[in-house]
Amino acid sequence: MTNIPSNLSCAFCQIVQKQVPAAIVFEDTLTLAFLDRRPLFPGHALLVPKAHLETLPDLPDELVAPLFIGARLLTQAVQEAMEAEGSFVAINNKVSQSVPHLHVHIVPRRRKDGLKGFFWPRNPYPSPQEMERVRQAIAAAAQRLSAR
Amino acid sequence: MTNIPSNLSCAFCQIVQKQVPAAIVFEDTLTLAFLDRRPLFPGHALLVPKAHLETLPDLPDELVAPLFIGARLLTQAVQEAMEAEGSFVAINNKVSQSVPHLHVHIVPRRRKDGLKGFFWPRNPYPSPQEMERVRQAIAAAAQRLSAR
Repeated sequence: MTNIPSNLSCAFCQIVQKQVPAAIVFEDTLTLAFLDRRPLFPGHALLVPKAHLETLPDLPDELVAPLFIGARLLTQAVQEAMEAEGSFVAINNKVSQSVPHLHVHIVPRRRKDGLKGFFWPRNPYPSPQEMERVRQAIAAAAQRLSAR
Repeated sequence: MTNIPSNLSCAFCQIVQKQVPAAIVFEDTLTLAFLDRRPLFPGHALLVPKAHLETLPDLPDELVAPLFIGARLLTQAVQEAMEAEGSFVAINNKVSQSVPHLHVHIVPRRRKDGLKGFFWPRNPYPSPQEMERVRQAIAAAAQRLSAR
């Protein structure tokens, strides 16, 4: 474990380093998954890269496939084990991120389970021009970033 | 585009095939991203694999890195273009999934923006035994699935 970049003041690094116990549901060389102690629903799991990385943009190329192949596996495992009808997979970057160590929430879902995840108020664009302005800003940023 | 498995009754395949217009912000050979027409906040983008795949568990190995390298790129692009403090990245599988074509929501976030995404009521496990029972069920499913 000594070759995993770690931050000993980080609650999730402490779990990765087995200094703090957790209800571990999956582990491989690069990732670890454990139950959230305060789940949205029982079976709510958190998947983390073992390396201390704060947000999705910080994830290096070589960890993208390992982390999200793990997220795909856990999604299926949580759905099957909890006999769920579906699932919610989410990452909070900075805002609403309780622990500053990248983690993928995997939450079992059932219809009418009361989770209003996507019943938040939607806000249509005030005009087609405003939508086009936003489109151009994001497209330009994506083009710039992908050319790096 | 003829080699992309498509479902012509699918709203997102119609966008991928350029049969229906959308506010496209990113495109490469395997993925496409466009603005959600009814955003949680302006800049809310949806990233899809061009192939018609319904949920995350349906994503084949060879598309995991392309889709999530795209998600990482769009997360950064949306944050920068919208001058956001953070972001919310989410996938709904089946439940709350409005279009049955896998899509990654990428939503810019600001502190106190009113998005109660993770202020949903948390439900602690009723007992350590119940938490351990859930842990064992998911760990067994993950082990079985990863041995395939």
